[in-house]
Amino acid sequence: MKKVVVIGGGTGNFVVLKGLKTYPLQLTAVVSMADDGGSTGILRDELGVLPPGDVRQCLVALSDSSRLMRSLMNYRFENGGLGGHSFGNLLLSALEKVTGSFEQAVEEASKILNIRGKVLPITTHQVRLKMVLKTKKLLEGEKEIYLSQEIDQGYETLFLEPYPKVNPKVLQEIQAADLIVLGPGGLHTSLIPNLLVEGVCDAIQKSDAKKVFVVNLMNRLGQTTGFKTSHYLSEIFQYLGKDIFDHILINTQKPPDSLIEFYSKQGELVCNDLNDKRLVLADLLGPMTEENRKDFMKRNLIRHDCKKLAQELMKIVDHL
Amino acid sequence: MKKVVVIGGGTGNFVVLKGLKTYPLQLTAVVSMADDGGSTGILRDELGVLPPGDVRQCLVALSDSSRLMRSLMNYRFENGGLGGHSFGNLLLSALEKVTGSFEQAVEEASKILNIRGKVLPITTHQVRLKMVLKTKKLLEGEKEIYLSQEIDQGYETLFLEPYPKVNPKVLQEIQAADLIVLGPGGLHTSLIPNLLVEGVCDAIQKSDAKKVFVVNLMNRLGQTTGFKTSHYLSEIFQYLGKDIFDHILINTQKPPDSLIEFYSKQGELVCNDLNDKRLVLADLLGPMTEENRKDFMKRNLIRHDCKKLAQELMKIVDHL
Repeated sequence: MKKVVVIGGGTGNFVVLKGLKTYPLQLTAVVSMADDGGSTGILRDELGVLPPGDVRQCLVALSDSSRLMRSLMNYRFENGGLGGHSFGNLLLSALEKVTGSFEQAVEEASKILNIRGKVLPITTHQVRLKMVLKTKKLLEGEKEIYLSQEIDQGYETLFLEPYPKVNPKVLQEIQAADLIVLGPGGLHTSLIPNLLVEGVCDAIQKSDAKKVFVVNLMNRLGQTTGFKTSHYLSEIFQYLGKDIFDHILINTQKPPDSLIEFYSKQGELVCNDLNDKRLVLADLLGPMTEENRKDFMKRNLIRHDCKKLAQELMKIVDHL
Repeated sequence: MKKVVVIGGGTGNFVVLKGLKTYPLQLTAVVSMADDGGSTGILRDELGVLPPGDVRQCLVALSDSSRLMRSLMNYRFENGGLGGHSFGNLLLSALEKVTGSFEQAVEEASKILNIRGKVLPITTHQVRLKMVLKTKKLLEGEKEIYLSQEIDQGYETLFLEPYPKVNPKVLQEIQAADLIVLGPGGLHTSLIPNLLVEGVCDAIQKSDAKKVFVVNLMNRLGQTTGFKTSHYLSEIFQYLGKDIFDHILINTQKPPDSLIEFYSKQGELVCNDLNDKRLVLADLLGPMTEENRKDFMKRNLIRHDCKKLAQELMKIVDHL
């Protein structure tokens, strides 16, 4: 079976993993440890645990257990001291406390959820994502960076504090991979945070795996306003050191105007400005059924269709 | 296989179930729904769920899963908004929210924990345990009754509000049982609350099962101060309407003086004042090893030894 490593964090990872899960692959999800918002942020602050939220999403994406178990993992308590916590986050944090190790917690949760593949935190050290803007303003934490409306005005540096050691299992998986998938996902908050961990960029460069970049559907305003495909790539290459992608997946299907309008305060569609043999142009949105439309309206931004995205990735895998 | 129904709630149930689990029996734990203290009380108040704490203890007692899973279920969060909640309680409450039914939540948790036997709430209605003392003082809630130091001065009535319908599965199990075990456990807070549910006393009386009462090791001061075996029985018979027990299990092993002294502010040993063919007199404490002694010192009161208690109960089962 081909080995596919999916690097990211948050919802982008979820979509890729959920789609690829149904194929006979050895799947590994590598997850950023920068998240510090919402339930995850409270758990980090109050319990001193590592951030469970993005790992939970990956576990649910890869889970082969019942729909009920997946609903349970994503269930959010509504009231009182528990208000806002998702049950899956509490499971991971309690397992971390009982086992004394976040990695072991992820392994145990993987068993409980009967997942296909594995989920690896990029590092098992407590880190905070920080950004210095061109104005010298310091943004502290992933949440603050995610909420900033000034990043598109330029930033000087994005870094993790303290500079963390990589989870050695991640390096092994990257080295052994046949395909590495980066994206989709928040550029500064989900994708690049993985590249800030010691040794990760070097391992990706040196890996014989084919590398695929999945371009986001939308720019978040204030974050990547006006970004085209080339801007995403050039920013990532600042970290990776060079252009390493063998394939660049781009959606060609325009969402309905009503949806673009609905999301217009949060974001705008990403336009493609490249013409390159590596580009894979495909409909990655799927049919806009009434159900899909309702589903789209519940989210922050328009998302890729799991199945369509996986189909295009599998065409690449089948040619390896 | 013989069918054994264990009726109670809290720690008493735990000890009986943990001991009996290792024998080839069809075990059913019937659990009081009166608990409203601690983590359970907060969950009831904030989320409107049914009380998970006693059910959790029974599930852990019957669980055939790993030691880690059992530790996880009993793990208590220490800080922040989660402080004091045991993970198992959160699991049951989240499952209740996701499935919309406490019974289904217990069934799903039973699968996750791979339990031997089944756990049934005595009712699936929201109830509060209330007591009117001789002084006309009203005690509201199990916690308030548990903490009262005046109950041994006499009470007029103990009741559930509202008067609840029984879980029909409980009646089926009582009817089909070969053996029914009542006790050990808090007389007013764990045992009698089961007898206050509509139809339960009648079902126990009419069942062809042999009935065993396990007498508590200690009286909690202010609750059952000075109670002897006959007092426990006569108070229970006020609810059951008549003397129904075929066997009465009484511990004969005196705990070390140091332990009695250690617990002297909370309780005193129960003395036996009966001489009756139904009495089963046995060492139900087990060897006082250093480990056992340390374990005893962690608790509220001295507990029965799971194995010894189960051995005596199995002698009764073997004669059925």
